[in-house]
Amino acid sequence: MSDAPAPQLTHDPERRREIAHLGPIELYTPVLEQSRDFFVRVMGLREVHRDEQSIYLHTWDDYQSWTIRLVQREHAGMGRTYLRAASPQARERLIETIEATGLGLGRVTDVRGLGEVYLFTDPDGHEMGLYWDVEWYQADDEDRPALKNQAAAYPGRGANLRRLDHVNFLTADVPGTSAFLRDVLGARCTEQIVKDDHVTPAAIWYSVGNKSYDLVYTEDWTGTRGRLHHVAFATDTREEILRAADVCLEAGVHIETGPHKHAIQQTFFLYVWEPGGNRIEICNAGARLILAPDWKTISWTKEERAKGQAWGLKTIDTFHTHGTPVLPANL
Amino acid sequence: MSDAPAPQLTHDPERRREIAHLGPIELYTPVLEQSRDFFVRVMGLREVHRDEQSIYLHTWDDYQSWTIRLVQREHAGMGRTYLRAASPQARERLIETIEATGLGLGRVTDVRGLGEVYLFTDPDGHEMGLYWDVEWYQADDEDRPALKNQAAAYPGRGANLRRLDHVNFLTADVPGTSAFLRDVLGARCTEQIVKDDHVTPAAIWYSVGNKSYDLVYTEDWTGTRGRLHHVAFATDTREEILRAADVCLEAGVHIETGPHKHAIQQTFFLYVWEPGGNRIEICNAGARLILAPDWKTISWTKEERAKGQAWGLKTIDTFHTHGTPVLPANL
Amino acid sequence: MSDAPAPQLTHDPERRREIAHLGPIELYTPVLEQSRDFFVRVMGLREVHRDEQSIYLHTWDDYQSWTIRLVQREHAGMGRTYLRAASPQARERLIETIEATGLGLGRVTDVRGLGEVYLFTDPDGHEMGLYWDVEWYQADDEDRPALKNQAAAYPGRGANLRRLDHVNFLTADVPGTSAFLRDVLGARCTEQIVKDDHVTPAAIWYSVGNKSYDLVYTEDWTGTRGRLHHVAFATDTREEILRAADVCLEAGVHIETGPHKHAIQQTFFLYVWEPGGNRIEICNAGARLILAPDWKTISWTKEERAKGQAWGLKTIDTFHTHGTPVLPANL
Amino acid sequence: MSDAPAPQLTHDPERRREIAHLGPIELYTPVLEQSRDFFVRVMGLREVHRDEQSIYLHTWDDYQSWTIRLVQREHAGMGRTYLRAASPQARERLIETIEATGLGLGRVTDVRGLGEVYLFTDPDGHEMGLYWDVEWYQADDEDRPALKNQAAAYPGRGANLRRLDHVNFLTADVPGTSAFLRDVLGARCTEQIVKDDHVTPAAIWYSVGNKSYDLVYTEDWTGTRGRLHHVAFATDTREEILRAADVCLEAGVHIETGPHKHAIQQTFFLYVWEPGGNRIEICNAGARLILAPDWKTISWTKEERAKGQAWGLKTIDTFHTHGTPVLPANL
Repeated sequence: MSDAPAPQLTHDPERRREIAHLGPIELYTPVLEQSRDFFVRVMGLREVHRDEQSIYLHTWDDYQSWTIRLVQREHAGMGRTYLRAASPQARERLIETIEATGLGLGRVTDVRGLGEVYLFTDPDGHEMGLYWDVEWYQADDEDRPALKNQAAAYPGRGANLRRLDHVNFLTADVPGTSAFLRDVLGARCTEQIVKDDHVTPAAIWYSVGNKSYDLVYTEDWTGTRGRLHHVAFATDTREEILRAADVCLEAGVHIETGPHKHAIQQTFFLYVWEPGGNRIEICNAGARLILAPDWKTISWTKEERAKGQAWGLKTIDTFHTHGTPVLPANL
Repeated sequence: MSDAPAPQLTHDPERRREIAHLGPIELYTPVLEQSRDFFVRVMGLREVHRDEQSIYLHTWDDYQSWTIRLVQREHAGMGRTYLRAASPQARERLIETIEATGLGLGRVTDVRGLGEVYLFTDPDGHEMGLYWDVEWYQADDEDRPALKNQAAAYPGRGANLRRLDHVNFLTADVPGTSAFLRDVLGARCTEQIVKDDHVTPAAIWYSVGNKSYDLVYTEDWTGTRGRLHHVAFATDTREEILRAADVCLEAGVHIETGPHKHAIQQTFFLYVWEPGGNRIEICNAGARLILAPDWKTISWTKEERAKGQAWGLKTIDTFHTHGTPVLPANL
Repeated sequence: MSDAPAPQLTHDPERRREIAHLGPIELYTPVLEQSRDFFVRVMGLREVHRDEQSIYLHTWDDYQSWTIRLVQREHAGMGRTYLRAASPQARERLIETIEATGLGLGRVTDVRGLGEVYLFTDPDGHEMGLYWDVEWYQADDEDRPALKNQAAAYPGRGANLRRLDHVNFLTADVPGTSAFLRDVLGARCTEQIVKDDHVTPAAIWYSVGNKSYDLVYTEDWTGTRGRLHHVAFATDTREEILRAADVCLEAGVHIETGPHKHAIQQTFFLYVWEPGGNRIEICNAGARLILAPDWKTISWTKEERAKGQAWGLKTIDTFHTHGTPVLPANL
Repeated sequence: MSDAPAPQLTHDPERRREIAHLGPIELYTPVLEQSRDFFVRVMGLREVHRDEQSIYLHTWDDYQSWTIRLVQREHAGMGRTYLRAASPQARERLIETIEATGLGLGRVTDVRGLGEVYLFTDPDGHEMGLYWDVEWYQADDEDRPALKNQAAAYPGRGANLRRLDHVNFLTADVPGTSAFLRDVLGARCTEQIVKDDHVTPAAIWYSVGNKSYDLVYTEDWTGTRGRLHHVAFATDTREEILRAADVCLEAGVHIETGPHKHAIQQTFFLYVWEPGGNRIEICNAGARLILAPDWKTISWTKEERAKGQAWGLKTIDTFHTHGTPVLPANL
């Protein structure tokens, strides 16, 4: 085994950032109303629309008309991850690049609150949609904010989740998805875990703007393709995550692990399972920003991870095994 | 004018502490349902009972069956302040002492959740009730706490007020009420504001246990007897008071001043007016405890107060003028 | 095995509270200067005096002249725990009661900053000292506080520990020490862990005032007498304990477990080992006060503890095995 | 006067973001060592270099080799504001655009830790420097961080300022500087204050990335050109700003106003004056991010500002009058 440090995942700072941000997303649940209750009553989201098979929810600091769509399905899992392009032209350039990979699925116009969406999958099979046109959130009398630079009123309810923060997928092929994120989507790898060879990535954290990450892929130890590890929502402070733990305790929500601080990305985290079975992270993103346009990817080795999380907490077993599938919408 | 420091308000540490704590209390409001909505929806209390003219509310960390009773009246103001004796015998000893002052009003047995209550007034006319027997809070299915060392579930709603903290009365006679608190009730003066003679108290902070204060009397500049300055409720941290300010902003509650930190007692405060017109303080009590049994009263002069609050905020005008009457229940 | 709940550890509310508070204390360390560095540089205490074999340290909110004395010894451990009586007369009454038990060791007058100290041990052999007269802390130019109701300036250094909070002893005889605390010292048991018979205490939390506990005794699984589990210091908020964890991480301090929240007493905790080997807890005491004079002891069973700490963290092994001896000063 | 809303300051989302971030900056002070002491001892920065007339300081989360340079001058004020380009090519494109305005001053290579710097002024005369090459911060034994994704160890000292956040200039010509920021530098106006005509900007907040603002210009009521209103540094949370207020109180630092929350940008703020006379803001930036690539500029009217800050605090007089000059380096 070589002692050489992991090679830098270099990127060209001159390359345009074509993706503005992550979201909205779709989550599947076998217990729709219970999952809705978890997100609305315990997490502080607001129900903004429902149709026969799904419920649309909104976090108070999201400028878009909805943040997650809960869909009734036989099994828990994830549906589409939508990505907003940085401009209409950026979207067309990205579509052209994705088309060349053969992973494109075509354009649809039936997604609530979004204009035309270009569908594709990553190499591991997670379905994604790229859009530009979007409906902005219109607060009504019940959630009109006191300050007009805010999408909706601060709910003062439960965990008061602010906005979607990131999605962490499980994948059978970390190197392949890493190449896709870098070469096709133009995202930037801010941190990674490398295997014993100090080169092969086992987990990758990719950023599309100044947030330190937006999309994460972790190796699926079960070898399954296309699964979800967790979806994460942001609060402002660590204190709010401690309060969220108390709120979950009172509500009987399964707390898997935390609150604690990851060494990687220094995220302060709390992992819970929503009633449908999907793992949800509550994290304090935002304070740590990546401002360097030529940020050097941080690589963590197996030895470094053996120390536990930042303050020494050992990672619990289910964290390495529990996942829920990401399934195409038309299944 | 003498340069001599204010004399110590000495107390005898050997004297028994006969009062266990403050509360519950009664508040009057001309808009009962609006005041109820403020306390339940914005402040996080729970309605536990209502009768024809009043509503009983409970804070989640109060071991007693109710914390405040809102009473429909023509004008805002305060009703009775109840004090729990430290033991049944302590209550009888206190009654004897109060009787000797001529301020006693007799015993009643019709107060919800309390056993026999001995009524009296302080020298300025604020009505009080002394009791020992009390009904403990029984959580039901809706607010059963996850941890059995807690009275009710953490509500996760609005300002999440934890418990009643203190009452601040206006009085036309600070020296007289000070003598009553010290000599009759046996409370201990932890801090005071003194006049230009450096001797005469203009405001007094009295404690009955380890909390740094429970009862406060401030000189009423209008010369009126028997008014209320504010009732205060505790949260755990300063951060929660900042959040309470956001919650009040969203709910359209009138924020009078704060959040800021008093130099006196170092209380981190937020003052709002409930819909009925009573001033309510949200404060972080608890972190600062008075453990010394021979604590030396801290005296603040006019010059020291001219510096503003701890971080320099100037006290606003209404803080010196706005008050609501404390009226006998049988008015 | 009976299903009956654990019997209430009743106390008589009329019984006087003869002890005002815990502290100061003595800690032994084989690496005096390293332990001093930990407490001063990382924890934020101040060195106020040193002699040939020991260093006296002060926490900024302690009204007394010192908070802990670090003593150079071959092995880590604890020396005397000092308790301040509630009044001079209370001290004499307590001495008489202790003398009757045969655990008295006599009076000494050579303790820095304290007047006459009456020495005794609890039934398990931990040495204690009871005093009334005490020297108050005199801030000098370097740590004069901006607000005169504070002992010393807020240091703005490391974990900024505010004051001593409690001592947790290991004991070979929980029932015996429990009877001593209750019957001899007059403290009140606020919570306990009971064995499978639901009666025999395995750990006890005793309070002398409104703090929910001051002295804790936990069964020593090794059967050794007279050991220390940990000494705890208070900060104001949970956020400060998270920051303390970061400060300890940067300083290379061994973090044993936490930050997390105990179900018992709801203490938010961080356990670290100071360089000498003693376990130190950083906790947020204060927010939760016991105001009921007739508080009913909360009993936790083995089954309840098997759920882990409040948010599910499993207790780590060293927490049950690591302890340091409490040794008489004249050893 | 028209009732028409302020026109949107539109920008083209397709236009490249050519500036990566703000900083480092230069501050002038007539009392160099006192200003250094303020930043190091009270604010938690680290001295990393000094030469005959200046001292270089570093905030712990800055990836660059220094964050501010304090320069000894007869009067307080600001020197250069450096801006890092998003790529080497972006820098050349920007230089070309600036040259065309006639505001260019030429290229220099003598700035510590930076490669070639292109100097220019904004239309109001504030001197700026555009660079790409930069020396990364190298932690030494004294401030090596425990986690390798962090520039330097968390200091655990004073206010623990994390990084430079923004600069707020006074200007005699808001519309002119606004046009320069938008048309020449390609920044995006996220919020503004408009005059009674609801069109003319009186203050503007411009962003270069996902932070909600980086450069602010406020109308100088004195009509003077080229002055500084304040320089702002970020902490993570509001709680840390409250603690910073306590730290400043203990250190005798002049607190001008706060802590409180601006309605504009929702910044939680504390304004203090460093010993040299420059106004310094401590703010919690980061939680609120602008993720929408087509964010619509928020316009605040005079009436809206008359309500005071977010929770009602009235703006104090000195906030409108106190400023310090921005002077060319070669004066």
